[in-house]
Amino acid sequence: MGPGPVNADPRVLRAMSAQLVGQYDPSMTAYMNETMELYRGVFKTANEQTVLIDGTSRAGIEAALVSLISPGDRVLVPIFGRFGHLLREIAERAGAEVHVREIEWGTVFTPAQIEQAIRETKPALLAIVHGDTSTTVAQPLDELGDICARHGVLFYTDVTASLAGNTFEADAWGLDAVTAGLQKCLGGPSGSAPATFSPRAALVINARKSIEAGIREAGDAVSAHPIRSNYFDLSMIFDYWGPKRLNHHTEATTMLYGARECARLLVDEGIDTAVERHRLHGAAMLAGVQGLGLAVFGDLEHRMNNVVAVHIPEGVTGDAVRGELLNDFGIEIGTSFGPLHGKVWRIGTMGYNARKDTVLTTLAALEQVLRRAGAGVTGGGGVGAAYEVYQDAARAASVAETGPA
Amino acid sequence: MGPGPVNADPRVLRAMSAQLVGQYDPSMTAYMNETMELYRGVFKTANEQTVLIDGTSRAGIEAALVSLISPGDRVLVPIFGRFGHLLREIAERAGAEVHVREIEWGTVFTPAQIEQAIRETKPALLAIVHGDTSTTVAQPLDELGDICARHGVLFYTDVTASLAGNTFEADAWGLDAVTAGLQKCLGGPSGSAPATFSPRAALVINARKSIEAGIREAGDAVSAHPIRSNYFDLSMIFDYWGPKRLNHHTEATTMLYGARECARLLVDEGIDTAVERHRLHGAAMLAGVQGLGLAVFGDLEHRMNNVVAVHIPEGVTGDAVRGELLNDFGIEIGTSFGPLHGKVWRIGTMGYNARKDTVLTTLAALEQVLRRAGAGVTGGGGVGAAYEVYQDAARAASVAETGPA
Repeated sequence: MGPGPVNADPRVLRAMSAQLVGQYDPSMTAYMNETMELYRGVFKTANEQTVLIDGTSRAGIEAALVSLISPGDRVLVPIFGRFGHLLREIAERAGAEVHVREIEWGTVFTPAQIEQAIRETKPALLAIVHGDTSTTVAQPLDELGDICARHGVLFYTDVTASLAGNTFEADAWGLDAVTAGLQKCLGGPSGSAPATFSPRAALVINARKSIEAGIREAGDAVSAHPIRSNYFDLSMIFDYWGPKRLNHHTEATTMLYGARECARLLVDEGIDTAVERHRLHGAAMLAGVQGLGLAVFGDLEHRMNNVVAVHIPEGVTGDAVRGELLNDFGIEIGTSFGPLHGKVWRIGTMGYNARKDTVLTTLAALEQVLRRAGAGVTGGGGVGAAYEVYQDAARAASVAETGPA
Repeated sequence: MGPGPVNADPRVLRAMSAQLVGQYDPSMTAYMNETMELYRGVFKTANEQTVLIDGTSRAGIEAALVSLISPGDRVLVPIFGRFGHLLREIAERAGAEVHVREIEWGTVFTPAQIEQAIRETKPALLAIVHGDTSTTVAQPLDELGDICARHGVLFYTDVTASLAGNTFEADAWGLDAVTAGLQKCLGGPSGSAPATFSPRAALVINARKSIEAGIREAGDAVSAHPIRSNYFDLSMIFDYWGPKRLNHHTEATTMLYGARECARLLVDEGIDTAVERHRLHGAAMLAGVQGLGLAVFGDLEHRMNNVVAVHIPEGVTGDAVRGELLNDFGIEIGTSFGPLHGKVWRIGTMGYNARKDTVLTTLAALEQVLRRAGAGVTGGGGVGAAYEVYQDAARAASVAETGPA
């Protein structure tokens, strides 16, 4: 019940025990095509270039940034948490001239602030995190696409922490590049990074295409300024996933099976239903920790559905409580980074763990552990408040079904 | 039965369906430590810095090269097949001044040729493939470590295609950096790259350490010339796998389970026994294709145990034969790259597929398919020749056990 990675859905794990097939076996390339189409549904996009990057979510970020950024390009990174710093870091290593804007952890930027920063820095690319687990808030992105389009700026976001647990619409929001990971709300393991790129982004990337020596044929593209990485060269990765089936890396078949099953689960449930499930169980967890008498960190209006940051009560040792929860109750909750380190715990309700039983069990265990640590807690207040959220939701659903009395 | 990826060992697939544990759960960090120790055994090294790179074998290559090479460094790449071109390509993108030496596909370099090239180019790093599946030969490395040491050159090799199927000794041969993959003789899926680095290599890498913003603390290293990639920054990856447990990527837990099980299988079997198994079944396959009347490509004295390249007979369409083997017999064999494209098939005997039943079945099916394609084949010649190899081996084992009559 931490901020991720969390338990994977058993169906995903079962899919990952399937036997391998050859790299260019027709059934393998059919799986690849099917996975592209499934993730178009997950990202809500029509982008042809919707692929998996073989590595963790951080690999997806680096593939997007190193492929979109030519050394010397100006990049704007608005930072509201730990992973904004990571975007800056990766963009700098890719050779960008990075401009940052920082706000206090727990808050988000207004569209006007972003537009002002774009006017001041005239970037080629805006790179911003959607949901940052380090602060638990999600930056609203729905108005930023228009701003970027007006100023001719490419618009990139990382949705590793938020996708499938919070509303996200790649095309409707005007995104040019989006990267994710499986280990949060998608219910899979870390190790595969679904990503999607608009035709505009693909144009920028393909302009630097340089087919590698050893498989290059007469007439193949050789750029004077190739992308700095071979492994993360999206122009070659697009051709590997596309009809050319250019030999690049050897697809990580087992991770592909896992990524495909994560998306199939979501499509079975319905993306919007999955988001609503995260909203419900996140709301129950939030009410529960507040019902125990704990204070919550950050701008609740912009909190992600799938994680809540709870102030560690005075006089309580954060890591001792986490240790007792893990060792005695088998429940993991998260520590925190940077300015929040030692001040808050982060409790997740995401993916396979966004369930009523996990929420109630966690609240019941937390109450016991806090009491033993000498903190003042309201007996039954956590589970009770969560039950109320569930009962309200059931009542609302019943009203919706039968009409008001 | 292609040149890899091949079927994974069922024990590896089963290990990959295990439920996840948290990133810093003591059982997870214990798995990480155990995996490091297991791969020290597989690589035959005492190197502390023995880790997994989260990505395919190509990710391991790029992590090694981008972390060892500072832009402008001279790198010598002797090329004897397709993957030598890949090393050159990745080194160039990492900013190296790359010098190459090329020889005909199917042959290997002599130590004197390598030393001469080192004298001429004075590289900081020698980067050379061990076994190149594109040509089926393995470059002898055992004399190159001394040469590199004499000239103050770092010595890197990629053993993706050869490890566990051919003799390899990282420390005895004087290697500074070695990268691999699971999808060949190790019997796992693509997606995790075991790698090991000597203390000398770790010194070079750690001299460029730059802890990323967002988790950097007072006194932490900030290099003026950080490694160009964040994801592949081995100095941070070492600290993630080491006692500092620096937060970097989120370890790909399921791939770790797979990589760990591949190594456990090898340790159970014995590394040397596994190499001998590949030698035996590779010899049976070689004798078998020759027994069918087919000609074999490349320097047989330096052929890898686990793959053989077979000339496509005159008048036979290579891809039609491969298609019939796959569609009608469920057996995949490989096509080929570059100068060999359309001229040879590549047939593998590696990992879980290095077995008597797979060898005999493949030879039996190949005979039928070739006959139907109108090629002249010796009826029973393939299976018969393979049986002889197995009988000779059984006789030799019996003699070794009971003594000569």
